[in-house]
Amino acid sequence: MDYTEKALRRVNTFHGIIVDVETDMVRLSNDQITMREVVRHPGGVCVAALDADGRVAMVRQFRYPFQTHLWELPAGKLEPGEEPFPAAQRELSEETGLEAGRWTELGAMYTSPGFSTERLYLYLAEDLRQGEAHPDPNEFLDVARVPLAELLERVDSGELQDAKTVVGLLRTAHLRGIDFPGSV
Amino acid sequence: MDYTEKALRRVNTFHGIIVDVETDMVRLSNDQITMREVVRHPGGVCVAALDADGRVAMVRQFRYPFQTHLWELPAGKLEPGEEPFPAAQRELSEETGLEAGRWTELGAMYTSPGFSTERLYLYLAEDLRQGEAHPDPNEFLDVARVPLAELLERVDSGELQDAKTVVGLLRTAHLRGIDFPGSV
Repeated sequence: MDYTEKALRRVNTFHGIIVDVETDMVRLSNDQITMREVVRHPGGVCVAALDADGRVAMVRQFRYPFQTHLWELPAGKLEPGEEPFPAAQRELSEETGLEAGRWTELGAMYTSPGFSTERLYLYLAEDLRQGEAHPDPNEFLDVARVPLAELLERVDSGELQDAKTVVGLLRTAHLRGIDFPGSV
Repeated sequence: MDYTEKALRRVNTFHGIIVDVETDMVRLSNDQITMREVVRHPGGVCVAALDADGRVAMVRQFRYPFQTHLWELPAGKLEPGEEPFPAAQRELSEETGLEAGRWTELGAMYTSPGFSTERLYLYLAEDLRQGEAHPDPNEFLDVARVPLAELLERVDSGELQDAKTVVGLLRTAHLRGIDFPGSV
């Protein structure tokens, strides 16, 4: 069935630093009128960097929305006009100092398609070379390399709950034929 | 390291229908001042309902932010004061008409911890009984039961990109010992 909703009029707009929010009056497929709210986000990238010893680079940051530190895969927003692949290379290098000789696409994901335009592009980076990290001036993070098998156990135990991190790790394990969770 | 960021002053607030947005001036761990933006979302639930034939209930809706129809696991927002488990039972029943005799927690996930408070609680529902669906008046959706093995292939091909759907399906497959992708 076609449930397309037709925008009639924008009734509110918020311009933020990371996101904009638009509230539209829309006509539903049954001709009823309702409101739809859209959080506009530039989208981003997320990288699972897997080294020759089966370890994955993880970063730990303070996440203001949850007022806690979280371990996640390296990730970041797209700059205006930036394509996902160079953004992935840039973010991995900035946050961890890693450069990779081999890149594999792990697909894209919608984080919250009911209300947000955010779309993340996931990559697997291998054949790693360690350089200098150079995070943004207002970005503070710890970096660690953790065995993929151990990270998969942390997904299974519920310790890792970040969506992009869970999807990136599970897809990496699948692509490289590693049991989840378990022995590498 | 402790990278806790301390709120100094709220400089902007947006009250929307689904989300609120708050812009705070904060003190970073190096004593520098910057701005943090938080999208406040009530959180929600997502249900993988697996029937005795190895099929999972999927719903197809128009998703206004992407102006397209998407197939996803049944899901929905928490009502004010509502606990995740009753919300999961409610949403599954509203969207698909299904009631389940057996519920298993699949853990929680942060959809976008960098800027959003949204947290989703995932469940596996089994021992299903088909009743009448009763979606919200402004909610239009198609429901189908699809073999889990086929859904895992669609995750692998990149056809299914919704984060909660990918995580819910992969965790269900893992919990029930089903290869990804492949033969049930």
